[in-house]
Amino acid sequence: MATAIVNIGSLLTNDPSLGTIENAAIVVDGERIAWAGPAAAVPAADDRVDAGGRAAAPGFVDSHAHLVFAGDRTSEFNARMSGRPYTAGGIQVTVAATRAATDAELDANVARYVAEALRQGTTTIECKSGYGLTVEDEARALRIAASHTEEVTYLGAHVVPPEYAADPDAYVDLVTGPMLDACAPHARWIDVFCERGAFDGDQARAVLTAGAGRGLVPRVHANQLRHGPGVLLAVELGAASADHCTHLDAADVDALAGGTTVATLLPGAEFSTRAEYPSARRLLDAGARVALSTDCNPGSSFTSSMPFCIAVAVREMGMTPDEAVTAATLGGAQALRRDDIGRITPGALADLVVLDAPSHVHLAYRPGVPLVSAVWRRGARHR
Amino acid sequence: MATAIVNIGSLLTNDPSLGTIENAAIVVDGERIAWAGPAAAVPAADDRVDAGGRAAAPGFVDSHAHLVFAGDRTSEFNARMSGRPYTAGGIQVTVAATRAATDAELDANVARYVAEALRQGTTTIECKSGYGLTVEDEARALRIAASHTEEVTYLGAHVVPPEYAADPDAYVDLVTGPMLDACAPHARWIDVFCERGAFDGDQARAVLTAGAGRGLVPRVHANQLRHGPGVLLAVELGAASADHCTHLDAADVDALAGGTTVATLLPGAEFSTRAEYPSARRLLDAGARVALSTDCNPGSSFTSSMPFCIAVAVREMGMTPDEAVTAATLGGAQALRRDDIGRITPGALADLVVLDAPSHVHLAYRPGVPLVSAVWRRGARHR
Repeated sequence: MATAIVNIGSLLTNDPSLGTIENAAIVVDGERIAWAGPAAAVPAADDRVDAGGRAAAPGFVDSHAHLVFAGDRTSEFNARMSGRPYTAGGIQVTVAATRAATDAELDANVARYVAEALRQGTTTIECKSGYGLTVEDEARALRIAASHTEEVTYLGAHVVPPEYAADPDAYVDLVTGPMLDACAPHARWIDVFCERGAFDGDQARAVLTAGAGRGLVPRVHANQLRHGPGVLLAVELGAASADHCTHLDAADVDALAGGTTVATLLPGAEFSTRAEYPSARRLLDAGARVALSTDCNPGSSFTSSMPFCIAVAVREMGMTPDEAVTAATLGGAQALRRDDIGRITPGALADLVVLDAPSHVHLAYRPGVPLVSAVWRRGARHR
Repeated sequence: MATAIVNIGSLLTNDPSLGTIENAAIVVDGERIAWAGPAAAVPAADDRVDAGGRAAAPGFVDSHAHLVFAGDRTSEFNARMSGRPYTAGGIQVTVAATRAATDAELDANVARYVAEALRQGTTTIECKSGYGLTVEDEARALRIAASHTEEVTYLGAHVVPPEYAADPDAYVDLVTGPMLDACAPHARWIDVFCERGAFDGDQARAVLTAGAGRGLVPRVHANQLRHGPGVLLAVELGAASADHCTHLDAADVDALAGGTTVATLLPGAEFSTRAEYPSARRLLDAGARVALSTDCNPGSSFTSSMPFCIAVAVREMGMTPDEAVTAATLGGAQALRRDDIGRITPGALADLVVLDAPSHVHLAYRPGVPLVSAVWRRGARHR
């Protein structure tokens, strides 16, 4: 059963040989793209959908989100917006609420945020644990995440929980020992928050190498709140992604440009904490690969909106609209080491957004306006 | 026919005697609010709608928008985001497209943007002319605007059109003479872009006083791109609103604090032009009234999203979430000198938003996420 989507005013493909096509069409066959090109050349199909001249683009790939949590942190947000500083300690509020929640409550929350993201055009979303911080609660978080997405990340090393405050290294032993045993079967990735107040470079290395030994591919929360060893460690260990990258020196930029680790920028976090934004421009000019993601979490970035992240990245990080939309699609796919998403090309999964606008540039040009008028995921239309 | 909206988790009323009510209800009778208060005390009604514990707030009042235009300025936006400076000259592109458009095209555009704003919770929207700049085209713009909103503003003095470039004062004579004659019957307000490159203080004074002589109440585009005489002129002439207020000195702040003119801040404009944001904090601390609006227009701020403006105002202008939501509702009503909108109180128009969130704070806490799940306008539910 093949469906032709015709009368696409402008189609961003992220396929170098196709480029951006004016007056385009796509043929979807099953869950994959069978064909993409100029409307005049569209092959026959069983069914036909008219995009009404709207623009289309690959579905957004959100490669960094923390969706397994309970409660919210409205009071903390309100306090911060009255001028009090943000500290990582706020995570413990969510840890306590998450531990106290039932499986059903956590599952309903993940389902809600995945659906909310999908309505806004996110067709692939990564999901981390990190609010359980016990063997049982981390494994539970990953099982729940895995029922909603294939991109599941073990983040037992999010912060040191209160019961290990006096002996953080014992917590690292837990994360790299029994907790890893319980979690590895449910995850594809391992992540660590490498930051003063969380885990230092040696601890982060121990966590990532232990995970790699169990087949989990590293990704790193790196250089968010201040300069640190996270980015260089990520590149050294061949991590798929170094996330945040807010405070970089020349060596960090050179390492990212010279390696395969994607620099994943999370403008929602700087937006919601009134922090300094990283320069995507500097990374792009150096030749690094850049992804944009939401960092969706109740503490520091409670947005699920990839269009919002695109608009802020253009405003604040020196990206052009083209670069930002590509970073939110192809960049996210690269950060997840996927070549079947993030582009509209024959053989890729049929994940795409149709915008109530003549071009993908409008995602930055019309900030805040819900422009996503249709979403196709794995060949099925979701709105 | 009275309808009770019950099970409102949190209700922002902007009514000093009601405040913000947890677990609230509203009774809508015809197009007005009949009652608002704690759910336990809700009077009998003919019909009952369950808000599911969601938060509610007054509908947004967008007191500054330029919706009568044709075309867009995607190329200019793209150029600017590649680092070239913004100049007011870009308006002429829209003037040419607007003059060339049919009445039906302009009407469809206004209808589209008013509907788009309504879906996002804007229940009252001001609409300016200013892309016609001939007697016929300005009058046409106002007639079209008046068929969509009661808040219509004559902005013949937006920029000097190319045909008057050699003699701007002759254009002011037109704006204050035959154009005013043709436009005054269709408008409530008169506005002028008081800015270097547009109209200086003397020209702005001539425009506003001529309009006031015909019963139009002044509002002023003031101090947007640099410091100028606009704010002091607005206060001196008793304008309803001084809009932008990006570059203020102490005398401007004192004048706004001591007068009745509302300072209307337009964060979408600074966002989309990478300009410096004004400090709402400074104005609020001085005692000035502050409104937030979109400035929706295809050149410098192509957003229709009041939630986006709230989130940016909190991030960038020093407002608390409460202050920003109040500025986007009650503040807008004050900028339009209306006491029947912007608050949920018996006798006010039944204009309200229901949010897919437990509190109105989430409009800032969850930036970019389309949280508006229901909109009531003049007593009718629109989504």
